[in-house]
Amino acid sequence: MFNFELKHKCPDTEARLGKITTPHGEIDTPVFMPVGTRGSVKGIMPKDLRETGAQIILGNTYHLLLKPGADVVEKLGGLQEFTSWKGPMLTDSGGFQVFSLGGLNRIGEDSVQFKSHIDGQLITLCPKSATKIQNQLGADIIMAFDECVKLPCPRERMKEAVERTIRWAGQSLDAHARKKEQWMFGIVQGGTDRELRHYCAEKLIEFDFPGYAIGGLSVGESHTEMIDTTRFTAKVLPENKPRYLMGVGTPKDMIAAISCGVDMFDCVIPTRNGRHGFAFTAKGPVRFRNEKHKLDSRPLDEDCDCYTCRNFSRGYLRHLFMVDKKSPEMLGPILVTLHNLAFYQWLMKQTRQAIKDDCFESWARQWTDDNEIVC
Amino acid sequence: MFNFELKHKCPDTEARLGKITTPHGEIDTPVFMPVGTRGSVKGIMPKDLRETGAQIILGNTYHLLLKPGADVVEKLGGLQEFTSWKGPMLTDSGGFQVFSLGGLNRIGEDSVQFKSHIDGQLITLCPKSATKIQNQLGADIIMAFDECVKLPCPRERMKEAVERTIRWAGQSLDAHARKKEQWMFGIVQGGTDRELRHYCAEKLIEFDFPGYAIGGLSVGESHTEMIDTTRFTAKVLPENKPRYLMGVGTPKDMIAAISCGVDMFDCVIPTRNGRHGFAFTAKGPVRFRNEKHKLDSRPLDEDCDCYTCRNFSRGYLRHLFMVDKKSPEMLGPILVTLHNLAFYQWLMKQTRQAIKDDCFESWARQWTDDNEIVC
Repeated sequence: MFNFELKHKCPDTEARLGKITTPHGEIDTPVFMPVGTRGSVKGIMPKDLRETGAQIILGNTYHLLLKPGADVVEKLGGLQEFTSWKGPMLTDSGGFQVFSLGGLNRIGEDSVQFKSHIDGQLITLCPKSATKIQNQLGADIIMAFDECVKLPCPRERMKEAVERTIRWAGQSLDAHARKKEQWMFGIVQGGTDRELRHYCAEKLIEFDFPGYAIGGLSVGESHTEMIDTTRFTAKVLPENKPRYLMGVGTPKDMIAAISCGVDMFDCVIPTRNGRHGFAFTAKGPVRFRNEKHKLDSRPLDEDCDCYTCRNFSRGYLRHLFMVDKKSPEMLGPILVTLHNLAFYQWLMKQTRQAIKDDCFESWARQWTDDNEIVC
Repeated sequence: MFNFELKHKCPDTEARLGKITTPHGEIDTPVFMPVGTRGSVKGIMPKDLRETGAQIILGNTYHLLLKPGADVVEKLGGLQEFTSWKGPMLTDSGGFQVFSLGGLNRIGEDSVQFKSHIDGQLITLCPKSATKIQNQLGADIIMAFDECVKLPCPRERMKEAVERTIRWAGQSLDAHARKKEQWMFGIVQGGTDRELRHYCAEKLIEFDFPGYAIGGLSVGESHTEMIDTTRFTAKVLPENKPRYLMGVGTPKDMIAAISCGVDMFDCVIPTRNGRHGFAFTAKGPVRFRNEKHKLDSRPLDEDCDCYTCRNFSRGYLRHLFMVDKKSPEMLGPILVTLHNLAFYQWLMKQTRQAIKDDCFESWARQWTDDNEIVC
């Protein structure tokens, strides 16, 4: 039911064109996965999400574990049936949120204890339980439980996290009870440390995961550090398996990472920024809180054919945000989120076409600084 | 460009089937108009609104006057172009909101001075300016400026408001500069006082408005008082012109008012209640904050074919509201609002069919108490 086909390689960079097959459908790579944190991509109906070109949606294990609970999602038919997203889905391992959102209580060798950010309840998560929860949620792609640390971080602390992540990866794989219906990816940690990343990747490769993620980035380091780390980590990973850069990023981040050989991305930027009236276009950002849009009858993006750009003026979108600064008309966040998601999908489509046409390197330059993208 | 055709009358009650023609399309009556207070029906895209069966949308002059201002709406092409609602629209006169929301400062013979509820700015509104603003907004149907008082109210105070409303109706009509493109309706005031309502209606009829509204109800009186007032007021109004009961109501209110001969309604109940997780069905309300829906895989309403009911379980909808009580997932309010609007349109469609089939009186009983609806 699962497959990754590497269809074409860029002659100038490490960029690649591929296709992932899952039980719920196919995914063209490079792919951007909108984030449906708590079981919905905020404000967007699945039918509209589909219309943006989205092929796979991400759900957050940490959030779904707290509410409504994995048992509830399982009893209501699993994440696809629950959310009515009739396509592939991916759940993260919960690790990132435990370490960033949860009130961290205790990291043990085999588990993490944390306080729910909702009600302070003490919860223990371990590779076994994180995997069981993801088995219950039922996404097509699930992630091994990992330890994600903030940057900068002392090397010894990072080494400890890497060792734990490797051990937990094996335990996650052992606990994985639905290998036929769900692909489990391993997550490479190691901060910006080349040696630790290399070590972590090699150890994970021994487990023969069907795909690998680069985790622990976009957590405080610079764009250059992130891309450097992505470049040397991706090089260690097997060519015939998908590579997923977690939590990244801006258009510039993604295009640069694609040139390093990354296939998959997820990020809250298009949705979160959209809710705050920040829109992406190929000509640069549009900020709807800016007075200059007040009487502008042009669409948000003249080159975009999303529902928002086909139907509404900049002046109207600005009105929706500015009618009450504390409580904008709901339609403003909805329409700009929808556009941003359509823009991200358009960008990935353009990227795939450029790789296919062997012109990715020159095409990519408009999105990145100087020669930063060349691997 | 405008017409009202009275197509059929119920043999048992005053209920009627009609059709209003406007420059932006036709409206089958009885009709329910969703409320797009500040230039959008909260959280609902026009394409989805259209799919519910909505034929005409209401905008609030008071709110649009404050933000973004009538000049902005006019410069961006008028309310239909601004909101991208490609159908008929109606704006109220601003009167109701000035008296309920605005910090009322001074009522003069010719104008009202009030403080904006947004920034406290002092604004004066009079029949001339309220009409000019509505001319600028450009809705198909606009309303004469009226004085709306809260109930209960001393008779002398009510009489004063009625006299002012009559005088202002004439001034509004005089100020109306776009009679070919916009129908202006007069608003009958008078509280629950039969004599004052009769007097106000007769005086307004002398102005020969193309339609009449019954205003000043649903402001504190009982259902029975409201329906009694509607019944005797509607009887005074000309048969060949549409009758609009402003700000009403629940399904029960509307069905009862239709039996009194009312053709048009607007109300925030389906949208506001939907945002709070309260859904309407023919079998009674569904409250999504109720624990009992947690594991319910059934749709909100098995008899409804709206997008919400076709795609989501009660358990999922409950999750969207309960994931964070203070800040639900946006999709919850959106999906339940959409259902409620579809339900209201379904109810009006059923009503029209029952009138057409000469079975309205018996059909209506399921929605009203006892024989309350018989006129």
